[in-house]
Amino acid sequence: MKLPDFKVEQWMNDYENEAVYNLTDTCVKPLVFSELMAMADENALMDLRLDYGTITGDSQLKKEILSLYKTGSEENITLMQGCLQANESLMYTLLEAGDTVIAYEPGYQQFTDLPKSFGCHVIILKLYEENGWQPDLNELEEAMKNDIKMIIINQPSNPTGVFFSEEYIEKMIELARKQSTWILSDEVYRGLYDEPSISDIYEKGISTSSLSKVFSLAGLRLGWIKGPEEVIHLINVRRDYSIISTGPLADMLACAALQNKEQILSRSRKIIEANRSIVSQFVKDHPQFHIVMPQYGTVGFLGYEADIDDTMLARQLLADEGVFFVPGSCFGSEKHMRIGFTCETETMIKGLTKLAAYLERK
Amino acid sequence: MKLPDFKVEQWMNDYENEAVYNLTDTCVKPLVFSELMAMADENALMDLRLDYGTITGDSQLKKEILSLYKTGSEENITLMQGCLQANESLMYTLLEAGDTVIAYEPGYQQFTDLPKSFGCHVIILKLYEENGWQPDLNELEEAMKNDIKMIIINQPSNPTGVFFSEEYIEKMIELARKQSTWILSDEVYRGLYDEPSISDIYEKGISTSSLSKVFSLAGLRLGWIKGPEEVIHLINVRRDYSIISTGPLADMLACAALQNKEQILSRSRKIIEANRSIVSQFVKDHPQFHIVMPQYGTVGFLGYEADIDDTMLARQLLADEGVFFVPGSCFGSEKHMRIGFTCETETMIKGLTKLAAYLERK
Repeated sequence: MKLPDFKVEQWMNDYENEAVYNLTDTCVKPLVFSELMAMADENALMDLRLDYGTITGDSQLKKEILSLYKTGSEENITLMQGCLQANESLMYTLLEAGDTVIAYEPGYQQFTDLPKSFGCHVIILKLYEENGWQPDLNELEEAMKNDIKMIIINQPSNPTGVFFSEEYIEKMIELARKQSTWILSDEVYRGLYDEPSISDIYEKGISTSSLSKVFSLAGLRLGWIKGPEEVIHLINVRRDYSIISTGPLADMLACAALQNKEQILSRSRKIIEANRSIVSQFVKDHPQFHIVMPQYGTVGFLGYEADIDDTMLARQLLADEGVFFVPGSCFGSEKHMRIGFTCETETMIKGLTKLAAYLERK
Repeated sequence: MKLPDFKVEQWMNDYENEAVYNLTDTCVKPLVFSELMAMADENALMDLRLDYGTITGDSQLKKEILSLYKTGSEENITLMQGCLQANESLMYTLLEAGDTVIAYEPGYQQFTDLPKSFGCHVIILKLYEENGWQPDLNELEEAMKNDIKMIIINQPSNPTGVFFSEEYIEKMIELARKQSTWILSDEVYRGLYDEPSISDIYEKGISTSSLSKVFSLAGLRLGWIKGPEEVIHLINVRRDYSIISTGPLADMLACAALQNKEQILSRSRKIIEANRSIVSQFVKDHPQFHIVMPQYGTVGFLGYEADIDDTMLARQLLADEGVFFVPGSCFGSEKHMRIGFTCETETMIKGLTKLAAYLERK
């Protein structure tokens, strides 16, 4: 089943190591192992048997994950090796060739190209900055005249950082309910501010997430699915063909991290809020830039006015100034840069200053 | 894409925790974390940044993996979260709906049911104990009259432990070469005795493996693919849609384990050889049992003569005596038990004694 290159991931893989000022990273400054060890029960860790562990995920870890939601029990949770894999597993499990799904653009390429790769039809609803990247309800109503198996959203979104409005989501649920449509919500950027989850408000809503972004622990490769029991059961059948378990080491360390989540999240909030302020001020001071400043998550979509295309600009900026962005074209939207509010504030200030000076010289 | 229950995995999940005498486990007695830590560079581990790490896998780890093979360079290796995922990713990447593949029975269910789930046709070649579980060359020649995209083998096999003969593999390669057929060889049980790998002897041969079985480290969820560069490239495109990376923590610990592989493997050999002797003697002493004693790997397929079906027997043995096996029916072959040579010898002796006594009372 053929897949095109995943543009944003390939861009990161190809260029990230050259970055001096990485202004595009989606993960809040990663923890180092000793910081995580300080949260764990060292004796229990040292005695841990490195077998498959509990196949669907450690029970204590599931309880900690449930504390991030308003509803549900352990039967509504299963563990995955990252959010991306959670999404993949759900698409392979719930979709068949010939099914139609709805996704949004600019957005994350997995949501459109993975279902296409095995024969699904994908209706793409376009988002526009002039609408604050909020979707158009009429377009959704029109699309829902088709037989829709799944709607895929990303709350908050990569790359825009925007959270679809409560009214829109309510209306979406109403339309979805009429034809038993799944809503898969990738909520990997959720968690900083107790944002709503689709799995708490719609009986066919499925939330996916991980420890990679706001929890600063991409290195654990630990994600999960929260959804209806019937979905969790199907995923647990599929896991025997694909991953078996996430393993007891990742489970135990993830559990320790979530038991200390306030410590991790307050660190993340501090980093992100400082960077958001810097970017807000930057946009005020430099009228050729514009952004819909997100309330949630770790990323935003910085637009610019200049006669240079975003891929070219991103390449030149990196080569000439060491400033690293992912260009908007990787997400289906030109003349934008995906900005991550995750780096050291010093890096953000220097990088933006260089960006502005560079564009002025153009 | 619908999948049936994975019989052996479901059986393990449902019953394993009730086992007093687990005679069926495929993983050599798992290491505990402190044993692994003793092999690692503690300072480097403590300082490890828990980001995504090197996306296709740590370079030093790839070098250590290459030491398990006779040919190849880093470009022929990519990391996966276990061997099962390596197989899954290869099937999704190299096969399309409508393709035909060849697999063997008794065998591992993933090789037949995963390709079927997305529309492949699977030709199953049957193996018989009276032939020492070796395949029939005429049947392969007959099957290869079709347009075959991939042959899937398991060297050594789960459940039989048998390694297909050198002559058969040579002939298979000759037939495969004529129509550019991939040979995917799941070699997760390889490694104890430097057995040959398909990736060293056929230019379209792909070897998958992991640290789960002979390396006693299932808990790391660390596997790999060794194959032609074009395949590794395609897998690395797909990984952006599914797992991104295995993560720097698993990579670093896996590297430490492989740097100490002789220590781990000699421990494994000792456990397995002791259990093989016990089972050989048991079969000699109890004529109602028979086995093709494998040379390699961690498992074998113990047959019995009695008027009770294997699923029933396995259930009753567990309930009445605490003796745990996976019944042969989970692999498509009745009146057999999958036996693992991996447990404490005491457990093996007691479990087999109880099995024999139980069957005598029947």
